[in-house]
Amino acid sequence: MESTGVTGHAQQVDGGSAPGVVAADHPGIVSLFGVLAYGEISAFYRLVEDAAMAPTLRDRIAMASMAAAEMNHFEVLEAALRDRGRDVLSVTEPFAAALDAYHASTLPSTWMEVLVKTYVADGLAADFYREIAHSLPAEVAATVREVLAETGHSEFVVSEVAARVAEDAAAKDRLMLWGRRLLGEAITQAQFVLAQREELTELVMTASGDFTGIVALFDRMQVRHSERMATLGLV
Amino acid sequence: MESTGVTGHAQQVDGGSAPGVVAADHPGIVSLFGVLAYGEISAFYRLVEDAAMAPTLRDRIAMASMAAAEMNHFEVLEAALRDRGRDVLSVTEPFAAALDAYHASTLPSTWMEVLVKTYVADGLAADFYREIAHSLPAEVAATVREVLAETGHSEFVVSEVAARVAEDAAAKDRLMLWGRRLLGEAITQAQFVLAQREELTELVMTASGDFTGIVALFDRMQVRHSERMATLGLV
Repeated sequence: MESTGVTGHAQQVDGGSAPGVVAADHPGIVSLFGVLAYGEISAFYRLVEDAAMAPTLRDRIAMASMAAAEMNHFEVLEAALRDRGRDVLSVTEPFAAALDAYHASTLPSTWMEVLVKTYVADGLAADFYREIAHSLPAEVAATVREVLAETGHSEFVVSEVAARVAEDAAAKDRLMLWGRRLLGEAITQAQFVLAQREELTELVMTASGDFTGIVALFDRMQVRHSERMATLGLV
Repeated sequence: MESTGVTGHAQQVDGGSAPGVVAADHPGIVSLFGVLAYGEISAFYRLVEDAAMAPTLRDRIAMASMAAAEMNHFEVLEAALRDRGRDVLSVTEPFAAALDAYHASTLPSTWMEVLVKTYVADGLAADFYREIAHSLPAEVAATVREVLAETGHSEFVVSEVAARVAEDAAAKDRLMLWGRRLLGEAITQAQFVLAQREELTELVMTASGDFTGIVALFDRMQVRHSERMATLGLV
């Protein structure tokens, strides 16, 4: 989509199966809501914990606002699950291990690492939404858009990070490695989740056309990740 | 108001000056928004920190929801201050010391203490709103109602605490003392804030009629506090 060129969907249609549309009662939808809901609650607690490193009250407020936005999204997912007769707790718990593992393996040790993680994670979530939205039933797509679309909150990160790395080459090197690690761990855990949950794999497969499509999806997310790193001056 | 009987406003009018109406440009309004805004951000971080003691994911979610509600309120106050051409940071910072002192002097050491503090603080805030709302300009009253009216979130506390104290007399005794300490520290810090900020004292004075009215206000809040403690089985 957008300017992805040779890896875009038009190309996929030539090279593999066309992306399809996910049925409204596909079991992967409940699991998708579940993994997103656990993602929101764990991001909430992680943001607040990381805010302990915030140097100013303004930064602490910005982190709290982002965390609150995650909880508001959680409540949207909780309501969507309730509409489907499902309880958010039982649906989210299967994803706790993978998401906790992601956070445990990417604990920031400086305020700059906090900021980069926030920005990168927000971006990856929005990318993932863009990748699958076109295949989801309209109502489900609207829910996913509401909880994954970029909030703009993390834009406050760009100026702080870009200013810092412009004047500190060592910090820049460390943050570039950090960004690579964040992406790597996210892909590792995403693949782990897909491997464990057949109904989710099927949903993403439907959105991507076929297995080649899933590989291309991860490739495109990697390209956009590099673009975001460049926006932060990490290039 | 409501069923407060002899301490209600009708009685005050006989015994002292009648409550008045606060002018729309009263400087106490900006300070009121400021103290409420700092109250929201500090409650946010405190709730999240206390959630570390939560025994279940369900409890962690309930605490995160309450914390997010505080931040949503913060944003309402930030917007109201922006409408008045004021920056939330400069307006809230003068209240940081008193509110931080309140939290530092009431750090819960058990999950039951966390729950009681949550419930008591939410109730005191709602009481304070009820006490001053009638004197505020309509637009200001609406903002204060939006951020102070009981959220209902803390109702989840009642069943957990009541069940525990019904079967554990020692826990009940400790929590009764805890409730008294929470009220005492809240009143101490509220009086400290009023003593430091003349424009706020004036605003509360206008809402209460006179100094006797302020004393009666604190008395009524104490009565309602006891009612809440009784609801928790702490009587």
